[in-house]
Amino acid sequence: MKIIVTQENLNRALNIVGRIATTRASLPILANILFRTDNGRLIIAATNMEVSITETIGAKVENDGAITIPARLITDFVNNLPHSNVNLETDGGKVKISAGGYKSTINAALADDFPELPEVKPANKFTIDAESLKEAISKTIIVASSDTTRPILTGVYVYSLDGVIYFAATDGYRLAEKKVMDEKSDISVIVPASTLSDVLRVLNGDEKVRIELDDEQISFMIGDITITSRLIDGRFIDYRQLIPTKTEFSATVDRNEFIRIVKVAELFARESAGSIVLKTKQAGQELSVESITSQIGENNSTIDAEVKGDGVVTLNSKFLLDALNAIGDDKVNLHFSGKLAPVLLTGENDDYKHIVMPVKS
Amino acid sequence: MKIIVTQENLNRALNIVGRIATTRASLPILANILFRTDNGRLIIAATNMEVSITETIGAKVENDGAITIPARLITDFVNNLPHSNVNLETDGGKVKISAGGYKSTINAALADDFPELPEVKPANKFTIDAESLKEAISKTIIVASSDTTRPILTGVYVYSLDGVIYFAATDGYRLAEKKVMDEKSDISVIVPASTLSDVLRVLNGDEKVRIELDDEQISFMIGDITITSRLIDGRFIDYRQLIPTKTEFSATVDRNEFIRIVKVAELFARESAGSIVLKTKQAGQELSVESITSQIGENNSTIDAEVKGDGVVTLNSKFLLDALNAIGDDKVNLHFSGKLAPVLLTGENDDYKHIVMPVKS
Repeated sequence: MKIIVTQENLNRALNIVGRIATTRASLPILANILFRTDNGRLIIAATNMEVSITETIGAKVENDGAITIPARLITDFVNNLPHSNVNLETDGGKVKISAGGYKSTINAALADDFPELPEVKPANKFTIDAESLKEAISKTIIVASSDTTRPILTGVYVYSLDGVIYFAATDGYRLAEKKVMDEKSDISVIVPASTLSDVLRVLNGDEKVRIELDDEQISFMIGDITITSRLIDGRFIDYRQLIPTKTEFSATVDRNEFIRIVKVAELFARESAGSIVLKTKQAGQELSVESITSQIGENNSTIDAEVKGDGVVTLNSKFLLDALNAIGDDKVNLHFSGKLAPVLLTGENDDYKHIVMPVKS
Repeated sequence: MKIIVTQENLNRALNIVGRIATTRASLPILANILFRTDNGRLIIAATNMEVSITETIGAKVENDGAITIPARLITDFVNNLPHSNVNLETDGGKVKISAGGYKSTINAALADDFPELPEVKPANKFTIDAESLKEAISKTIIVASSDTTRPILTGVYVYSLDGVIYFAATDGYRLAEKKVMDEKSDISVIVPASTLSDVLRVLNGDEKVRIELDDEQISFMIGDITITSRLIDGRFIDYRQLIPTKTEFSATVDRNEFIRIVKVAELFARESAGSIVLKTKQAGQELSVESITSQIGENNSTIDAEVKGDGVVTLNSKFLLDALNAIGDDKVNLHFSGKLAPVLLTGENDDYKHIVMPVKS
């Protein structure tokens, strides 16, 4: 292989693809990045056997070929090169790289040993705005579980119902559902939350993203970048029954003020593992947040609210802050029915529902 | 004590003073911040028994008094309050704090148990520009040692010679000396580098800093903030003999280009603990940096330079990068005399000298 690429293109691609390469795998070559010429262009790829990322960049190809290079070294190396042309030339198990006054020979590994890159034979495909996808991912992955003993909860359930695509996730303590877009095709897959984090990092600007899927795999095509991941096997839980439809108490408040009083209460809630008490007061049209009295002291904060009913519920402050941050709107609605029933949080429209289970108190 | 202060003033002061409070000390009250009224103002102070920081802020004092409050809690608490007036009122071992809708009672500790704040009875004092002090500190503390078995090397030697103040530090492998300002008084103290780091964090803007010192202590007065520290006992080493006055080889190069080729070489120098080889070539008017061939591969980069002599020297890449970053000028001068003699690095004038010992190769 003998090629010339620009430092800018190579650097950008390595920063995206290189993250997936892993030195922790049992297969040492997974710490490398694959370089392969393809029809006058250069494919750069990495995989951890669950997810693979490939990017195709423009190149002047003098000789076709392929090689794999340690990801960390080549990424840091190219990152420090000046903005100029970079020459790569393989020489057996080595690759010679030069740019301006810089000359290096890196010990590489043959591309033959690199795992086959996965291909999706799409049973289904659809297209989505990058912005909508970004929002759907970021508002749901935060509640996905990290407990691998229940694999389905480590993913986001992406499915269609009555011609609408939803993203949903839950860790058993809280649950988030985002209504995303209209789509006729029939979809029902569980995508690893970690894959969606990778997709989130790559998304920027306002391009369209093409999504292709079969029973086992899903691909996200973002410009010249393709992220392909295995799907999580299994049936997602029937979570819709957990979303409260009628609640006894409610409060509508300024989201930033709410965040602030929760953060203050959290400081006093260390001994109670973050438990804080929310109270709505219809007479005063107030929402108050209290910490449980502890060795540190006690705390009580009150903000104006549109309130229905005098209710009390205890929540975990971290879960509540996650919900408030995810909602993102200026105003937030809190709906609950006493100390045991799920608490529903929504923003200024019904597209996003965030449910938090109360702490028993 | 009963006082009213603004959230902005209190927040700023707590962020500066609170850093010194420590939960790791054997004396639990050192994790607290002292609040004490003083002539219609509020003194906020913390100490770790080596360094103390006090700041005096405006306050409406309704009742004089003093209390100590856990630093972490009060700092985070005030940081989350809205920009409004904050009321503090002591009630035995508790302090009640309120601001807008926020009400808290924090379990505090009596001020009687807080250590006496140190006072310097100045044998000497002088005034220095914040900018000059900032530069003198930041260019010398980087080479101070963290090895407490030789205490004098963990400090910066601040002294006067022929009517000029110098800052100097060394860890035995490298050495930095900054010529700071003209000053008639006779000064010779070793200030802990950690104290100077604290001073550096507080310095901003273009105010003047008053420095007062006696045999045991030094105080830095920066606006309403005073940082007082013990001095390090002992005689600093006679370092001036280590600064090379005549050298055989030299190169003048663009500092940013030099940093870049060193960073690239460093990537290939992991197996050799960061050792990289510098070569001056008079015929080509070039400076080259090479890594020692390793399992990873090999690397060689060349930049244009004004060169005198064909020399070779091996340096530690981290030490060299520290020196280049500290120098800060556009051009940097490298002076050396072969593989064993100290290497001198300077910027565009002679105020700052940075010496690095070669790695034996």
